[in-house]
Amino acid sequence: MPRVGIIGAGQLGMMLGNAAKALGIDCVFLDPSAQPPATGCGEIIKARFDDARALAELASQVDVITYEFENVAVEALSPIAEKVAVYPPLRALQQAQDRLLEKQQFAELGIPLPAWRTVDSEADLRAAAEDIGLPLVVKTRRFGYDGKGQYTVKVPGDIGKALRTLPNKPLIAEQWIAFDREVSAIGVCGRDGAQSFYPLTENQHRNGILRRSTAPSGPAALQALADEYLGKLMRHLDYVGVLALELFVVGEQLLANEYAPRVHNSGHWTIEGAATSQFENHLRAVCNLPLGPTITLGHAGMLNLIGSMPSSPEVLQATGIHLHDYGKEPRSGRKLGHLTLLDADAANRDRRLQKLEIMLGS
Amino acid sequence: MPRVGIIGAGQLGMMLGNAAKALGIDCVFLDPSAQPPATGCGEIIKARFDDARALAELASQVDVITYEFENVAVEALSPIAEKVAVYPPLRALQQAQDRLLEKQQFAELGIPLPAWRTVDSEADLRAAAEDIGLPLVVKTRRFGYDGKGQYTVKVPGDIGKALRTLPNKPLIAEQWIAFDREVSAIGVCGRDGAQSFYPLTENQHRNGILRRSTAPSGPAALQALADEYLGKLMRHLDYVGVLALELFVVGEQLLANEYAPRVHNSGHWTIEGAATSQFENHLRAVCNLPLGPTITLGHAGMLNLIGSMPSSPEVLQATGIHLHDYGKEPRSGRKLGHLTLLDADAANRDRRLQKLEIMLGS
Repeated sequence: MPRVGIIGAGQLGMMLGNAAKALGIDCVFLDPSAQPPATGCGEIIKARFDDARALAELASQVDVITYEFENVAVEALSPIAEKVAVYPPLRALQQAQDRLLEKQQFAELGIPLPAWRTVDSEADLRAAAEDIGLPLVVKTRRFGYDGKGQYTVKVPGDIGKALRTLPNKPLIAEQWIAFDREVSAIGVCGRDGAQSFYPLTENQHRNGILRRSTAPSGPAALQALADEYLGKLMRHLDYVGVLALELFVVGEQLLANEYAPRVHNSGHWTIEGAATSQFENHLRAVCNLPLGPTITLGHAGMLNLIGSMPSSPEVLQATGIHLHDYGKEPRSGRKLGHLTLLDADAANRDRRLQKLEIMLGS
Repeated sequence: MPRVGIIGAGQLGMMLGNAAKALGIDCVFLDPSAQPPATGCGEIIKARFDDARALAELASQVDVITYEFENVAVEALSPIAEKVAVYPPLRALQQAQDRLLEKQQFAELGIPLPAWRTVDSEADLRAAAEDIGLPLVVKTRRFGYDGKGQYTVKVPGDIGKALRTLPNKPLIAEQWIAFDREVSAIGVCGRDGAQSFYPLTENQHRNGILRRSTAPSGPAALQALADEYLGKLMRHLDYVGVLALELFVVGEQLLANEYAPRVHNSGHWTIEGAATSQFENHLRAVCNLPLGPTITLGHAGMLNLIGSMPSSPEVLQATGIHLHDYGKEPRSGRKLGHLTLLDADAANRDRRLQKLEIMLGS
């Protein structure tokens, strides 16, 4: 089995590491943290993500490199990509790091998306407000995550405040969408070009952080549309690995929000809820192994545990809960773990999730 | 969450360690091996299983101690059991280490078992052959596993050879049973006495080593009988943790063969095939957490990978296979990993298992 280098040893790295271990794949991680969640999943080179020497050391030890988050500097990865295969391809990483490139890519491929304008000045933002209408969501072009680096302009009077909150950054203004639901489409593409798609996952955010995911989320027509968009994107990018595309559902339409060139929080349910988890399939893809089936084993629900872990017996008493503790220090707004449950019936799954949310006091 | 000490860091320790990690439970292992399968699942104290100082060190670091195999010397564990809780209770361990005590326990509880006699001399074995009839399976009373320490006496002429093969050991002779099937009953008992039972698992051995397990294995009447026997045994032993009872099916009867006071190879399918795995439930039990449900998610099949690992792409191409590589050096007769698959249909599960067995060349 090949040795895999993973940039980042957070919870996504940990779940990749767990899947790798079962497959007999050795992992080496790169992460600057003292005791990251992937501790125990393989050797960890303790260094900054853009440390050229550490990246070269990682490259010398493995057959293929992947990453668990998209804020890795492409400039730092480019030199090692000449020595060892890096998947997903750096082009996907580069686009995902820049909302402008990302939106241009969607547009180029005919994937519908909310209206948007680049914003480099107050005049730009005023013009965008006039063209697209309010509300507008103003975002930094680069390095936003979990709702950070965003400001919603609801009335013209907010424009100044938005620019003071997000100063001196290339910005982008997006049409605010009164969506019916938010979903993510998660797919995987092998080195041979084989594509496979998980059922759509419905996501609920709170304060910009994913709180709850449920899958499968129909109907079939939306699934077909999402698979088409995701498939197009993967083909265009010569993609290898798991790709997550976040979409707004508006009636029978899907509007692309953003994509993540990696395993995704909204796909955690696949560990217990799918025949092959997104983590295993990502590894299969980057290691040139055959992809595993993406069918579901029931109606899955996932709750992120944010800020504090529940007192355990209380939650473990809830029937059929799969707890995942990332072993992180509690901190407000921090993802510390998640819970997954499976049910034969979607309505029952929802009732159980609701009870759990009440139990978690949130 | 409590810290758990685990004696043994083999594959069962590894699977306990994986389940512990998800629950946020830290583990410390004791094992003399250089690079045991549980490497990465927690600190490993490298020492012999009966090393008093190492056991005391383990006890000083944890809130509760358990073990992953039953050939731990009870004498070595007794002193630490006075300082820290050890589950399953040492009495269960002691009995499971001695076929005579084990059989006396079955008899005392009214659990049917094959006829048997203790054998300390050739005269004893001849008398047993006369009383019970041939064939007889002659076994060492202590420290047998995977078919080792056994000899089948088919004709009177085998008696001398049996005693030469198993010399100078207290022996036991058991009636050879022309069973219909071999099954294992796996149950779990919490510190509060709550009991829960997995569906019966049907087992196929080869050369004395478990090769294939399938579950659930009905009918309901046998399940009820097995749960009754297992429940009785757990209550009598003030048991805490997972207990596996191996049984012969003869018509509508179950005959007890032996029990293991630990998680069991025949329950590996519970990782993907049950709502809560035997490993998680064992930890929940010994840590005084509520037990998780033991219901199945489909028809599960498990194949042990013995002696050599399959060339991976070939096996991974088989749809819906969950591979578990223990990371051990290949050696003839050694359990190196296992495969699990789930299917909505039992007959289809069996067809898929058969294909896999052919693919594995076995």
